Amino acid sequence: MSAVLKMEECREHVRTQLDTVVDFWLKYSHDTVHGGFFTCIGRDGTVYDELKYVWLQGRQVWMYCRLYRTMDRFHKPEILEAAKAGGEFLRKFARVSTSSGQWKCAFCLTRDGKAVKIQRTIFSECFYIMAMDELSRTTGDKDMQLEAEQMMEQLIYWVRVDSSGLGRPQLPGDVATNSMAIPMMLLCLVQQLTEGRGQEVVQKYRELGRWCVQQILQHMQRDGTAILENVSLDGQELPGCQGRLQNPGHALEAGWFLIQYSAEWGDDDLQRTAIDKFVELPYQNGWDKEHGGLFYFLDVDGHCPTQLEWSMKLWWPHCEALIAFLMAYSQTKKPELLDRFSQVYEYTFSHFPDAKSGEWFGYLTQEGKVALDFKGGPFKGFFHVPRCLYMCERILDDL
Amino acid sequence: MSAVLKMEECREHVRTQLDTVVDFWLKYSHDTVHGGFFTCIGRDGTVYDELKYVWLQGRQVWMYCRLYRTMDRFHKPEILEAAKAGGEFLRKFARVSTSSGQWKCAFCLTRDGKAVKIQRTIFSECFYIMAMDELSRTTGDKDMQLEAEQMMEQLIYWVRVDSSGLGRPQLPGDVATNSMAIPMMLLCLVQQLTEGRGQEVVQKYRELGRWCVQQILQHMQRDGTAILENVSLDGQELPGCQGRLQNPGHALEAGWFLIQYSAEWGDDDLQRTAIDKFVELPYQNGWDKEHGGLFYFLDVDGHCPTQLEWSMKLWWPHCEALIAFLMAYSQTKKPELLDRFSQVYEYTFSHFPDAKSGEWFGYLTQEGKVALDFKGGPFKGFFHVPRCLYMCERILDDL
Repeated sequence: MSAVLKMEECREHVRTQLDTVVDFWLKYSHDTVHGGFFTCIGRDGTVYDELKYVWLQGRQVWMYCRLYRTMDRFHKPEILEAAKAGGEFLRKFARVSTSSGQWKCAFCLTRDGKAVKIQRTIFSECFYIMAMDELSRTTGDKDMQLEAEQMMEQLIYWVRVDSSGLGRPQLPGDVATNSMAIPMMLLCLVQQLTEGRGQEVVQKYRELGRWCVQQILQHMQRDGTAILENVSLDGQELPGCQGRLQNPGHALEAGWFLIQYSAEWGDDDLQRTAIDKFVELPYQNGWDKEHGGLFYFLDVDGHCPTQLEWSMKLWWPHCEALIAFLMAYSQTKKPELLDRFSQVYEYTFSHFPDAKSGEWFGYLTQEGKVALDFKGGPFKGFFHVPRCLYMCERILDDL
Repeated sequence: MSAVLKMEECREHVRTQLDTVVDFWLKYSHDTVHGGFFTCIGRDGTVYDELKYVWLQGRQVWMYCRLYRTMDRFHKPEILEAAKAGGEFLRKFARVSTSSGQWKCAFCLTRDGKAVKIQRTIFSECFYIMAMDELSRTTGDKDMQLEAEQMMEQLIYWVRVDSSGLGRPQLPGDVATNSMAIPMMLLCLVQQLTEGRGQEVVQKYRELGRWCVQQILQHMQRDGTAILENVSLDGQELPGCQGRLQNPGHALEAGWFLIQYSAEWGDDDLQRTAIDKFVELPYQNGWDKEHGGLFYFLDVDGHCPTQLEWSMKLWWPHCEALIAFLMAYSQTKKPELLDRFSQVYEYTFSHFPDAKSGEWFGYLTQEGKVALDFKGGPFKGFFHVPRCLYMCERILDDL
């Protein structure tokens, strides 16, 4: 069979999967009483816990808006209304006042919006910003765009000036760390806030984007043979488990953020580094040669990681790998990148989708058996799967 | 073979195992430069991270002292010196000053004692108390006993009067919860602080002991068919995953704490409840009929737990089950309890000990394969294994 035909078949499959996944969340996740989305959803769609996780509220609003705004077949009132209701729930309940007087978002809310937990990190705020910006693009609401930009200023202050507002006590043994998640998320937000906006906005975030890229590149360690998840602020390897930690899925996600950035600014060197070091390398280091699939965590020196779930196969690193290899191929047309995409595609689609009830399982054992069978949980919502299918469909359309 | 012979064989095996385990930690865990103990120790004894976890520092001091003080063959200067050095390290570094001005212990220290992390819970303090009290019994140091009792007052204040000193923000959706770990740990501390002390000390903690027992009994739910890990302050089931969570190993540990308490106070009703509901029931609900071993977490309604490690087989629930069934048998002489002990014994000793390098693996897959091969990690130290072997050897001596 020709490569073109195979790619067409793949595009059809991805398209059908995306439809199924959207249907699942439209059907089971909407809280028509209190607004917002249920996020703890069992295999067959049953809500097994009414808590509402804020990361997932923000991500679902963002994803619905993206689909509504950019894909004709999802330009449906049902999706727009759900996104708006989710955004309203977020604005009403996610922001909580803290003793420091700064803006902070809760991590988890009760069904009716009472704060249950606040994390001392920036991620609830990141997904709040993504939701507000994308919603403002969809509805034309300038207030929301302003709110996204204001929250962004707060984030930048926490990351680059003073993090004490996050509530972590300063401890003498707790050295400041460059964790890959931080510059990755900020780069993602820069791309979100500037996409298609005028020169004024683009220039406003130009320096921040460059800084994020530099911070991400610092995670290339050991003479370019590994991407490490945590490094020191001056880009050196940290001692112990924390310093030796590899998270292949995260590196692959950073990889396609960097490919996108390099395309936007025409930076060929960066594109090469992104593909070689943040896509190919984590795949090489992170792929399980025995059972297939990407490990969740690995220690660069081969020690056993202390995370109990280190050898499990999670859905999202596979989502990131699919996007990364397909995007890398679309930019370079190198056939070996398409081969990699096919290999990850093969593993992913033969293991994660649930043929019986729709949507994907999230958590497999090392051997590939379903270990947790829910479709939504505290960290799995309407985000990685549809974003992956959406990105892949669009890239395949272009190819 | 006669039951007596089998029990003698079992006692010999337990005794040999205890010797091997003590040797392992004596050989690999002592930091002769900075004092205290390395806790991240690989399969073959290699220190793979120099961080010192405070729970495990306190537990190791406690265990060394217990062995030194109560078992002739461990009454060796090497063990006493290590316990004293560990206690000194704890006193010097574990206590940190907080903004509230209250005593708080760090969760994790650098090798040279600088605080890395503080948990907003009471457990570091609990193991600090255990270490100080047991050390004071071993060395006769009255200051340490006083320190243990003072820290205990602080704990009681946090648990029963005002928890704000722990540093958690008060949130409207975060309802106060009776988590089994809290009354269990306090009951354990009451037993530690009062054991063999005069009437004055016993009376001082009498009401607290009774309160702990009542709090533990509230976890019996659903008409006595399940032990749930979290209940409301007035003993009702909580909504959602948190409310439906079962942790069989924890229930079994509470079981033997209650059996001990019932023996101390001659409370036959409590003994019956402890054995039926906190030993037999969690075994029935928590044993994996397909692959053997105790699950780590289960949902009482059969939903999939959200903890990624729910189906793994951990060493410590098996340690608690061995103590619980053997103690239950020794108190009642009911042969079915000895049968259960044998079944858990069979699984435990055929899966956890590492014949090659000594000590036990801590984390197996559901199917019983070693998933993490280190001997010490952030939550596994010189505690559950030696405590189990020590308790079992002593009970078997008595039988």
